[in-house]
Amino acid sequence: MHPFADSAARNLAAVRERKPLIHNITNFVAMNFTANALLAMGASPVMAHAANEVEEMVSHAAALVLNIGTLTEEQIESMILAGRKAAACRVPVIFDPVGSGATAFRTRSARRIIAETNPVVIRGNPSEVLSLADASSQTIGVDSAHTVDQATAAARTLALELGATLAITGPVDLVTDGRRTVWIANGHPLMGRVTGTGCAATAIIGAFLSVESDPVRAAASALAYFGLAGEMAARKAAAPGSFMIQLLDALYTITPEQLEAGCRITSTE
Amino acid sequence: MHPFADSAARNLAAVRERKPLIHNITNFVAMNFTANALLAMGASPVMAHAANEVEEMVSHAAALVLNIGTLTEEQIESMILAGRKAAACRVPVIFDPVGSGATAFRTRSARRIIAETNPVVIRGNPSEVLSLADASSQTIGVDSAHTVDQATAAARTLALELGATLAITGPVDLVTDGRRTVWIANGHPLMGRVTGTGCAATAIIGAFLSVESDPVRAAASALAYFGLAGEMAARKAAAPGSFMIQLLDALYTITPEQLEAGCRITSTE
Amino acid sequence: MHPFADSAARNLAAVRERKPLIHNITNFVAMNFTANALLAMGASPVMAHAANEVEEMVSHAAALVLNIGTLTEEQIESMILAGRKAAACRVPVIFDPVGSGATAFRTRSARRIIAETNPVVIRGNPSEVLSLADASSQTIGVDSAHTVDQATAAARTLALELGATLAITGPVDLVTDGRRTVWIANGHPLMGRVTGTGCAATAIIGAFLSVESDPVRAAASALAYFGLAGEMAARKAAAPGSFMIQLLDALYTITPEQLEAGCRITSTE
Repeated sequence: MHPFADSAARNLAAVRERKPLIHNITNFVAMNFTANALLAMGASPVMAHAANEVEEMVSHAAALVLNIGTLTEEQIESMILAGRKAAACRVPVIFDPVGSGATAFRTRSARRIIAETNPVVIRGNPSEVLSLADASSQTIGVDSAHTVDQATAAARTLALELGATLAITGPVDLVTDGRRTVWIANGHPLMGRVTGTGCAATAIIGAFLSVESDPVRAAASALAYFGLAGEMAARKAAAPGSFMIQLLDALYTITPEQLEAGCRITSTE
Repeated sequence: MHPFADSAARNLAAVRERKPLIHNITNFVAMNFTANALLAMGASPVMAHAANEVEEMVSHAAALVLNIGTLTEEQIESMILAGRKAAACRVPVIFDPVGSGATAFRTRSARRIIAETNPVVIRGNPSEVLSLADASSQTIGVDSAHTVDQATAAARTLALELGATLAITGPVDLVTDGRRTVWIANGHPLMGRVTGTGCAATAIIGAFLSVESDPVRAAASALAYFGLAGEMAARKAAAPGSFMIQLLDALYTITPEQLEAGCRITSTE
Repeated sequence: MHPFADSAARNLAAVRERKPLIHNITNFVAMNFTANALLAMGASPVMAHAANEVEEMVSHAAALVLNIGTLTEEQIESMILAGRKAAACRVPVIFDPVGSGATAFRTRSARRIIAETNPVVIRGNPSEVLSLADASSQTIGVDSAHTVDQATAAARTLALELGATLAITGPVDLVTDGRRTVWIANGHPLMGRVTGTGCAATAIIGAFLSVESDPVRAAASALAYFGLAGEMAARKAAAPGSFMIQLLDALYTITPEQLEAGCRITSTE
């Protein structure tokens, strides 16, 4: 068993015990599902994006989740204000560059937010993450045009360059800080048929970061937990509507012991 | 049986018969769930927040629901425009100060909206409602740091001061206009694991206010109805995803007779 | 069997094979449900409304869906920018005038968006569509004050006038380009108890338009498909919460063969 399996179990138990306040500045599509995923797992979500209050809100939070799924200029300014305050308060920032690579506005904004807020973890699909390194990488809407394998080498380089841990999700997820690389084989194809599963994964990494100081461990164990919830949901549901509901249920019912036993994390491909 | 049990049954039947138009200016997290809750119960929800149209929209409505869950300066202006027009048209206003006490912006905005729109009913958790009276009351994100019991005395005083009925929700809900006080013991802990249940409760009070002129009766019977729906949902679902769906189903299936029999309203603690 | 039944089956199969990118500028209530409906059917939704990016986003899309459910001045400008670019790129535009007729702002904005973006298909309830022709038509919030029958003659005239196909939904849906008129009898009353079903229907017409050049055929077959999904959902669920989930499931599970057999399209009333 991979040593992270034990971390995953401990992190899940710690979130449920401490109920960390997770401050989200996120998109309008996934806002409801993300809040429900965080509540189901045992965290305490708050969604707040007005420039007038994000600094005060984040000062009480245990993690800050930034997501550009339906970004506007105003939201970018709020994200940067909140991100800088988070740094001052030692609140970890996790960033989701939804659709980066699909439009110049998203790619440019993603890079600016990273430069200004120094996220500890960045989670995206392969195309989104590649677009952060290479302006010519193309994302199709919010879907990836690349596989995780194609992104591996570039991800390691980019992680070192940005000083951030990258979490690239796909059929097998990859987490790397440039030095260490782990793969997470948990998950189910129906997750791609429910909107906001990627955004929820990012927020769950945020919750794990609030109780785990090693970002590689936090991201990998959060993705194993979320992927295992998908596997359990797929045993009860064969279509996306029911699957989405069973996924929320599984986030609530999975025990730390089940997570430790069900983790499929490896340090080699 | 408490005399309000009969009111609850009559109010529910009246909403289903009249299908009142409920105008909501609410947050982006709970907008979908709130609309679905109102539709399931038999009301007709409309969500509209542009300053260009809120006055015209509210002039056709049977109640106006204001909720600051993801407020911005623009939304505050729209709420005040709509609230003043509601007063002019004798449309009851109900207000949900989500997260008041968590940031100065929320507390200040909540007080301003109350002063400008004179809501008939204000619904919140204990910390949110206490923050309206006492600037030092602290809310944790959108969760309460106080119990309903701790808020009771202050709530009575505040209700008289504001000339409004206060509905404070928790394991046992409290409704008071400062003179009369009732407690509602309906509900289930899983309601706290679904985002927007508080917001939906507020909107359902709005629907009851559109058919019931006594605000204490409207708020108490709406909370009994919503809480009973939670109890019925919990008999069919043991985790938050399924629970949320069963809750919507129960709002649709509960009969006035079931509500009258299932109400747990008392006038003493 | 109506000749469109075969088109419906082919269109559904084509969407599932090509996974067209559907760009939505839509309301905050239905955004999540619309994205889930498109994903469940096999399309690839993207929601993007910032003026900075809508032109670039739509240039990669196979259809553009515009919906004014929670419109603001900024959104109108984005819709017009995106709609003009769509015309330049030969991307079909479909428009949903949610609540047109309920406020002057909505009616005026709906007409302006139509004039500036030349939608191929416009879908609404009878009152919404009538309001586009006759300023005195009144919509109640977002609900219709008229029946589909009452709107038929006016719809034919308006379709010719606008050079657009009109899809008017109700217990029996009507699709007309002014010359041809078809009726679609698929559907279930519970669809009216779930928020965003109309908006999802519009988006599904958008997906069908991306693979079918005849707008009457695209709109009619999309509405048959969506209505059939409602019928299948109602066989498994008797209340709105479960129904909504079963509806998403049915969009995923219906086969082209089932759709061909289940279509209830006629060319006479």
